[in-house]
Amino acid sequence: MITRMTELFVRTLREDPSDAEVASHRWLVRAGYIRRVAPGIYSWLPLGLRVLQKVEQIVREEMAAAGSQEVRFPALLPREPYEATGRWTEYGQGIFRLKDRRDNDYLLGPTHEEMFALAVKDLYSSYKDLPLTIHQIQTKYRDEARPRAGLLRGREFVMKDAYSFDVDEAGLARSYARQREAYQRIFDRLGFEYVIVKALSGAMGGSMSEEFLAISPIGEDTFVRSPGGYAANVEAVTVPVPDPVDASDVPAAHVEPTPGTPTIETLVAALNAHHPRPDRQWQASDTLKNVLLVVTQPDGSRHDLAVGLPGDREVDAKRLEAQLGEGATWAPFGEEDFARHPQLVKGYIGPGVLGEEGPTGIRYLLDPRVVDGTAWVTGADEVDRHVLHLVKGRDFDADGTIEVAEVRAGDPAPDGSGPLELARGMEMGHIFALGTKYSEALGVKVLDPNGKLVPVQMGSYGIGISRAVAAVAEGSCDDKGLCWPRELAPFDVLVLATGKGEEPLQVATGIASALADRGYEVLLDDRKASPGVKFADSELLGVPTVVVVGRGLADGVVEVRDRRSGDRVEVPVDEAPEHLLELLR
Amino acid sequence: MITRMTELFVRTLREDPSDAEVASHRWLVRAGYIRRVAPGIYSWLPLGLRVLQKVEQIVREEMAAAGSQEVRFPALLPREPYEATGRWTEYGQGIFRLKDRRDNDYLLGPTHEEMFALAVKDLYSSYKDLPLTIHQIQTKYRDEARPRAGLLRGREFVMKDAYSFDVDEAGLARSYARQREAYQRIFDRLGFEYVIVKALSGAMGGSMSEEFLAISPIGEDTFVRSPGGYAANVEAVTVPVPDPVDASDVPAAHVEPTPGTPTIETLVAALNAHHPRPDRQWQASDTLKNVLLVVTQPDGSRHDLAVGLPGDREVDAKRLEAQLGEGATWAPFGEEDFARHPQLVKGYIGPGVLGEEGPTGIRYLLDPRVVDGTAWVTGADEVDRHVLHLVKGRDFDADGTIEVAEVRAGDPAPDGSGPLELARGMEMGHIFALGTKYSEALGVKVLDPNGKLVPVQMGSYGIGISRAVAAVAEGSCDDKGLCWPRELAPFDVLVLATGKGEEPLQVATGIASALADRGYEVLLDDRKASPGVKFADSELLGVPTVVVVGRGLADGVVEVRDRRSGDRVEVPVDEAPEHLLELLR
Repeated sequence: MITRMTELFVRTLREDPSDAEVASHRWLVRAGYIRRVAPGIYSWLPLGLRVLQKVEQIVREEMAAAGSQEVRFPALLPREPYEATGRWTEYGQGIFRLKDRRDNDYLLGPTHEEMFALAVKDLYSSYKDLPLTIHQIQTKYRDEARPRAGLLRGREFVMKDAYSFDVDEAGLARSYARQREAYQRIFDRLGFEYVIVKALSGAMGGSMSEEFLAISPIGEDTFVRSPGGYAANVEAVTVPVPDPVDASDVPAAHVEPTPGTPTIETLVAALNAHHPRPDRQWQASDTLKNVLLVVTQPDGSRHDLAVGLPGDREVDAKRLEAQLGEGATWAPFGEEDFARHPQLVKGYIGPGVLGEEGPTGIRYLLDPRVVDGTAWVTGADEVDRHVLHLVKGRDFDADGTIEVAEVRAGDPAPDGSGPLELARGMEMGHIFALGTKYSEALGVKVLDPNGKLVPVQMGSYGIGISRAVAAVAEGSCDDKGLCWPRELAPFDVLVLATGKGEEPLQVATGIASALADRGYEVLLDDRKASPGVKFADSELLGVPTVVVVGRGLADGVVEVRDRRSGDRVEVPVDEAPEHLLELLR
Repeated sequence: MITRMTELFVRTLREDPSDAEVASHRWLVRAGYIRRVAPGIYSWLPLGLRVLQKVEQIVREEMAAAGSQEVRFPALLPREPYEATGRWTEYGQGIFRLKDRRDNDYLLGPTHEEMFALAVKDLYSSYKDLPLTIHQIQTKYRDEARPRAGLLRGREFVMKDAYSFDVDEAGLARSYARQREAYQRIFDRLGFEYVIVKALSGAMGGSMSEEFLAISPIGEDTFVRSPGGYAANVEAVTVPVPDPVDASDVPAAHVEPTPGTPTIETLVAALNAHHPRPDRQWQASDTLKNVLLVVTQPDGSRHDLAVGLPGDREVDAKRLEAQLGEGATWAPFGEEDFARHPQLVKGYIGPGVLGEEGPTGIRYLLDPRVVDGTAWVTGADEVDRHVLHLVKGRDFDADGTIEVAEVRAGDPAPDGSGPLELARGMEMGHIFALGTKYSEALGVKVLDPNGKLVPVQMGSYGIGISRAVAAVAEGSCDDKGLCWPRELAPFDVLVLATGKGEEPLQVATGIASALADRGYEVLLDDRKASPGVKFADSELLGVPTVVVVGRGLADGVVEVRDRRSGDRVEVPVDEAPEHLLELLR
């Protein structure tokens, strides 16, 4: 089919949108693919919708090939099932809630575990009905605190979400593997560089999950990987726990004056100046830093939390949030918080006042590196004083451990596969082996082969469809505009007529028709605009192959340009259709 | 492709759902096409989604053929544009409203005139950019007071909505005609009996609109049609206004005692008994009935309204609601309302106390039949007394006219095309020539050929896609279940194996494969269930062609059944694929 630029609902823009932080956002708006309606909410114009529908089609094909059946559930959902699993509360401000005219509570679905589980509960009752995997391609909603980067973090977006149901864990493992393979095929077809990383399950629950990240410097997610093949997002990395240390040679703990040392840096300098170690210099990693936080749960309740970690590491906000759980927020202790606990001496806090059994009663969790027998310099709970040689397990203890210390390049992988490197990525897919969290909360049980009622083993598998459009754009664009891979381009070919008289447009229309007759989608630039405008727009729009009909006509040739490489070849007019068909095959 | 019943996510039900009022609802639920999630909110299971997607595809093809371009706008929309056109208020309780975490107001889009108009305003500026028609296939929301009949009146539903933009009225007329023709093609392909009727524009505004109604006894809409081709929904029918009458021979009005006549029936009997007419019996149509109402506007404000109409006609609730406008509600006067107006004597109210200039100040509107010179018997504003020979224009007047009297079979068509007949239908599509209501409210203007800024002429065109699935089901089902037309059926053929041993399933699979290889969608009933269950399910599911592989195998034949006609033919096994391919072509 031929689409004429004079009829296409598009207008290219010369200016960047003021809120564009990333290239894909800038180009998708400037090229007339999408338009912003509200923060994180976009309209798909004809060009953008064509790309979106191509991504949908790839996902649909691969889901069918993986034996999943398509369904379509509502986006407007009743509160009750989400109440039963606790997510109505856990999501906090992260979901849109509303009431109907009878004052019943509803939400706009962020993900559909509850609804799919209930549908299976309604219809199925036996292991003979399983395995089952069903999916939908549907509009989803999250009330993001910081919608950003165009389609990359939106509040209304298109997702494919699939759910698997099995009678036992072995079945779940098979269903999970089948979706995982389908995801690999999908991301291969989408054509961007991606990595599969271990992830935390967060509010979804379940025993295991993995993320598919498109590798990109603008990604919001940091992940690590090792030469030996370990890969995890930064929230899921675990610290290899050292063996306990024999502390029998460590001197008894003793308090020393350390005037003017409220920071790790000043403390280390003072130690080296006034309390030198015989063997080596004191380092930040010899100190134990106690960080105090106020945590707010989704239901509004608050509690204090102390985290003890080696002084050379900061608390990583994302790792902390992942540990606190979906919907919980945190803030560092402020003056008013310290005022609530007069035992805490800011800058000189030691483990002695912390812990649920301690004088403050504040829950105290340690970095896993702080194992029994390790000795630390830490605050003495008095201004300008620190304790030296304070040994974990001998002189102090805590309520447990927590994985919130920053991960650094060079840290060892937890599986011993070598030093970690850090990189950034965009979360494009997330797959979860949920186990029985939802089936138990909602009573989804089937008879197993022994006639026993067992909760169904569930998996959940999501792909951001609209986000994938942005990720492909981000990974393929250049400084002139979009640059689509052939499988996702809104048109197969752009035929562009320039020059005076009717001949260029006639020839261009002829070439376009020859391609359209063979089933290709052709965009014909039939505007009365200058060649400069048309060339610039052809680069902005990013159709992979551009045919220029103009100056060369005098010599009986047209020019075929490759958008990505910039290569240009001249082809005789009457051979142009055959040349292009060859290219497109 | 072959789909095996043992793997298909479906379970047929033996019991009707308790809330099923109509056949399509009953069968779609029992056959496992849809599941209820909340009032007016449904999930589409695999069978249902297949039909829905086929309807979507038909609409998509016909929209493209009519030159419309597909886009996809958000469903979650900001308040401001709807505030600008007044619809944020006008919709009253009819839309879902919500707030985001920053306390901004949003709605779930019931229809998108504002958003499409703003997109055109953003991108276009000249008559050269027009005409333009763009459409989307999208999930829409209305908080219906009475969701009912399954998909027929839902709160979340799928619609195709298209919008046209032209520089002048002649252009709008062309765009409107083009969509109207596309609708005719769509409804012809969907295969149900429909009628195009004049309609009121209601909250949409604009100069003209027409509805496409599927003719059905269970339809919520009543429409009229005449032998001469007039057709309108009952809200849009207008009364042919008679010419004024010469009242010079009518005696002076005079009050008569009419004891115990608070109703039209008792009044007519009393008149004939005590005040006989010389020429003929008194009839209800000689009396003028004054009906008092309290109207509540969407913004909560209330006012009184009096309607005067011939005593043989009731006020039609739908016609009244259409006149009051979207979101307004009404109630008949109650005791407390009469108490507010001591001048009103219930059962004996005359025009004298009514009207904005009258003692009560109540706005008074007359049926258009009450023309100047017509004489009436009506209440004398005293108990047990009526006025005779009260002449409109001579003895009383009103504030205007209103079209709310019931329409009856046999009433004349307003265009003189003969007596009306009444029938019922389901609204499947509604097209509006909106004119400039939205473009003026939102400032959507373009330069016309004379360089003058003019507001764009808009049209709006909707089809209920999910409703169409129910309408087709409703029109085609029988007492055994669904019965799809070939173009919409979820599968082309159902192949059903019965009987002992492996041979029936092997033969059935062979036939299914032969069809699947040629691109047909085949459902294979490979369950270990009794023939009775399989036959009953095959009728319930409604696949148009059913192949039964079983008893006949001993004689080398299979049976091919036509679901609609019930016809059965025996076909030799090895000729079955060719026979079926012939059928399907």
